[in-house]
Amino acid sequence: MSKGKINFGIMLHGAGGHMNSWRHPSGPADASVNIRYITDVARAAEAAGIAFAFVADGLYINEKSIPHFLNRFEPLTVLSALAAQTERIGLCGTVSTSYSDPFTIARQFASLDLLSGGRAGWNVVTTPLEGTARNYGRPHPKPSLRYDIADEYLKVVRRLWSSWEEDAFIRDRQTGVFFDAQKLHRLNHQGRFFSVEGPLNIQRSPQGEPVIFQAGASETGIGFAGRNAEAVFTHIGGLQENRHYYAQVKAAALAHGRDPQSVRIFPGVNPIVGRTEAQAEEKYRAIRDLVDISDALAYLGRYFDHHDFSVYALDAPFPELGDIGKNSFRSVTDKIKRQAAEQKLTLREVALDAATPRSPFIGTPDKIADLLIGYFEGGAADGFILTFLVAAEGFADFRAEVLPRLAGRGYFDPILKAATLRENLGLAIPRNRYVQQRAEVSRQGVA
Amino acid sequence: MSKGKINFGIMLHGAGGHMNSWRHPSGPADASVNIRYITDVARAAEAAGIAFAFVADGLYINEKSIPHFLNRFEPLTVLSALAAQTERIGLCGTVSTSYSDPFTIARQFASLDLLSGGRAGWNVVTTPLEGTARNYGRPHPKPSLRYDIADEYLKVVRRLWSSWEEDAFIRDRQTGVFFDAQKLHRLNHQGRFFSVEGPLNIQRSPQGEPVIFQAGASETGIGFAGRNAEAVFTHIGGLQENRHYYAQVKAAALAHGRDPQSVRIFPGVNPIVGRTEAQAEEKYRAIRDLVDISDALAYLGRYFDHHDFSVYALDAPFPELGDIGKNSFRSVTDKIKRQAAEQKLTLREVALDAATPRSPFIGTPDKIADLLIGYFEGGAADGFILTFLVAAEGFADFRAEVLPRLAGRGYFDPILKAATLRENLGLAIPRNRYVQQRAEVSRQGVA
Repeated sequence: MSKGKINFGIMLHGAGGHMNSWRHPSGPADASVNIRYITDVARAAEAAGIAFAFVADGLYINEKSIPHFLNRFEPLTVLSALAAQTERIGLCGTVSTSYSDPFTIARQFASLDLLSGGRAGWNVVTTPLEGTARNYGRPHPKPSLRYDIADEYLKVVRRLWSSWEEDAFIRDRQTGVFFDAQKLHRLNHQGRFFSVEGPLNIQRSPQGEPVIFQAGASETGIGFAGRNAEAVFTHIGGLQENRHYYAQVKAAALAHGRDPQSVRIFPGVNPIVGRTEAQAEEKYRAIRDLVDISDALAYLGRYFDHHDFSVYALDAPFPELGDIGKNSFRSVTDKIKRQAAEQKLTLREVALDAATPRSPFIGTPDKIADLLIGYFEGGAADGFILTFLVAAEGFADFRAEVLPRLAGRGYFDPILKAATLRENLGLAIPRNRYVQQRAEVSRQGVA
Repeated sequence: MSKGKINFGIMLHGAGGHMNSWRHPSGPADASVNIRYITDVARAAEAAGIAFAFVADGLYINEKSIPHFLNRFEPLTVLSALAAQTERIGLCGTVSTSYSDPFTIARQFASLDLLSGGRAGWNVVTTPLEGTARNYGRPHPKPSLRYDIADEYLKVVRRLWSSWEEDAFIRDRQTGVFFDAQKLHRLNHQGRFFSVEGPLNIQRSPQGEPVIFQAGASETGIGFAGRNAEAVFTHIGGLQENRHYYAQVKAAALAHGRDPQSVRIFPGVNPIVGRTEAQAEEKYRAIRDLVDISDALAYLGRYFDHHDFSVYALDAPFPELGDIGKNSFRSVTDKIKRQAAEQKLTLREVALDAATPRSPFIGTPDKIADLLIGYFEGGAADGFILTFLVAAEGFADFRAEVLPRLAGRGYFDPILKAATLRENLGLAIPRNRYVQQRAEVSRQGVA
C-alpha cells in the first residue's frame, strides 16, 4: 500500500551534473547560459508533473571549476524569467546567508513568489567556499558562526515576510482607503548580526511565503533543518543510511515543536535509464567517456597522493600499487584496488569509473522505479531531486520510461494539481506570524 | 531638419506617477503588484517602439509613503520576468550602490543582460532616504561619501563584467576545450571601500554589458554622470533650464575624455493628451480629483507652516493669508497666492492643483508633439522618459495620438530595429576592458 505520492524536483544545472556534460550530444554545449534551453526543460518538467525546478549556486570560481560553474545565470534572475514562462512548477534557488542582506533577499524572494503566483523556494546555504570571501571583501565566517548567522537571518526574513497581513491591502476606490494601517507590522529587530526595522515593501503571495529549502548533513545542519527547513536535500546512499538521516531530520523537527510532515526529505538521484541493463550501461559509458583519459588519470591520481598513472599501459590490468594510496582516502583507494582485482579492470576503466562514479540508478525503468519506491516506502525519502549527469538525455528517458511506471503503480501524479509550490508539496500555507501570535494570545485568554 | 530620432522610455510604476493613480478607473487598482498588467504594458510599449521600460525603486517605506511604494515588485526580479515576455524593449532598473555588494549586483545585472539577449540597463542610485539605513543595520553615508562609494563600486562592476573576453568560451566538443584561460581576467581590486578578486561567473552579453543610467542634478551628480553614465534622467523644466543641464552633462563627459554622444539625456515628461485642449483639461481634472479634498488641504498646508485650511469655505475665493507662507517655501507660496488672485481660484481649486501639479504637457497631440520636438531640437533632450500620472490612460492616449504624429514628422521610429538596448539607443557596444587595454598598448607600441 502506498503512503502517498512521490514529489520530484529537477536540478537546472545547464548540460548536467557531470563535469563534462556539455560535451554530450543530447543537449546544447552552452546549456548553462542558454535561456531557451533552460526554459524548455522547465516547461517539459512542468508538463510531466515535476513539482519544482532548482537552481544551485556558487559565488567563487577559478580555472579549475567545473565548466558549468564558470558561466551560468544567477538564480533569482533566471527563476524570475522562468516564472513568466511556466504556470505551476515550483521555482527554487540557492542564496547564501553569509554574503547577502536579509532585507534584500526577503524582498527578492517575496517578489519572485508574488510574480510566480506563489511558487518560490529558497535554498538557504551558508557558503562553504572560502574563496567567496575574496569576492566580497570580508572574512569568511567559521561553520558554526555561519549557522548562527543563518538562524538569525531566517528569523528576520520570515518576520519581514509578515510585514503585511493577508488582507492589509483594501484598495477601495470609492473611499480612497488603500491599506489598513493596523495590518502593517514592523519587526524592529536588533540582534547579534542584524538590525532591521522593516516593514517590507511587498505583500504576501498566494502561498503565504517562499518554501525554505536546505541541505545540511552535519549535526549542526540537521539542527538547522529541524528548526527552519520545509524541504531538505540530501545525497543518496544506501537505504539504511538515508532512512537514518530521514529519521534524524524528522526527529529534529519534532524536537522543535514542529509536525514532522512539515519538513520533506529529497535525496538527489541521477538515473540513467535504458530499455535493457546493457543499454543503460552503454549510456553510462558514453557519459564516462566525456572525460579525456589524461584528465581521468589525473583525477584518479588525487586519491593516490598525486601518483603519476600516465606511466602505465592504459589497457593493461590495473597496476599493482603496494603501499601507494594508504592515506586519508584509504577507504576509497582500497575499494578501487579491490574492485579492479575482482572485476579484472584495466587502468583505463578504473580511471574513467573514478572520474564518473557509477550510481545505483543505472538500469531498466522497472529497476529504477523499484529503487525509488523502495526509498520512499522504506522511510528514507518523501521525494527526490533529479540531478541527471546529462540533463537532456537523462530527463527525456526518465520522463518517457520511469514516470509512467511510477504513475501506473500509484506513486506519482503526472499532473501538477495546484498553482502554488506549497500545495504541490503538501505543505500548509502559513498565516502571517503576527496574526498567528494574535490567535495564540486570544486562545490562551479564553482558556 | 531633424537631428535624428527621439528615443522614449516608459516608467513602470504601477498605476502611475500620481499618488492616487490606483483610484483611476483606466487600470487595475493593484497595478504595482499585478504582473499580468505590467507585462501587458511592457509588451504594448515594445510594440509601439518605446526603447526601454524602467522600474524605479526604494528601500524604505512608512505609513506615509505613496501607495505604489508600499507594495511593489523588486526591480531585478520583475525585469527578469519581463525579459521572458518581450524581445526588443530595454529593461532598466534602479539599484543602490550604498546598500548592496558589487559582486552580487554585477552578477544579477549581467544575468538579466544575458537572459534578455542584451537589453539590461542599471540606474545607479546612491539612496537619499535615510530610513534605508535602519533596514540594513548600517550608518547612512553622507552624500559626497555616497558618490565616492558609487564611483569605486562602478569601477569594480565594470571590471567584473570584463572577466571573460567575448570569445573566451570555445566549447569544442571534439577537443574538450571549454574555455581559453588566456581570456579570463581577475580584477584583484583592493580599494577604499571594496576588495574584490573576481572573476565573475558569467559571460558578456550581446550588448557587451548593461547600459549605465543615472539621475543626478547636483554638481556631484553631474560629475558622476560625466564619468560614468550612458543615459541620464532629469526632470523637465523650462527649455532653457533643460538646455543648460544638457550642456553641463555633455561637457562633463567631454571633460572625462568621453564622446558627448555616449551619454544620452532623458527628461521625464507626463503628458495628458486630449483631442481638444478642453478634453485634456478634463482628463487632468479627473486625475486631480483622485485626491480627497481633505488630503489636498493638508498637502497645501505643508507649504504654509501646516496652516489649517479646513476652516475656510471650500468654494469661496482663496483666503487672504497675510504673512502666512513667508517661509522657506516662499517662492512656491507667493506663486500660489498670485495665481489664485489673478485667476480668481477657489480654495478647492488651489488645493487640488497643489496636490496634482499641472505639467506643461497637457493638451492636444499636436501641442505635445511640438513641445517634445522643441526640447529635442533645442538641445535639451535626446529622448524622454514617460512618467504618466495615470499609466493606463496616459500611455494609451500617447501611443494612439502623439507617437504617430512624431513618426509622421520623422522624429520617431515606431519599430525597434535592434535586439539590444545599446543599439536601439544608438550607443556603441563596448569591448571587454582588458581587450581595450591591450589594443591601446599595442597602438602605443606602434606609434
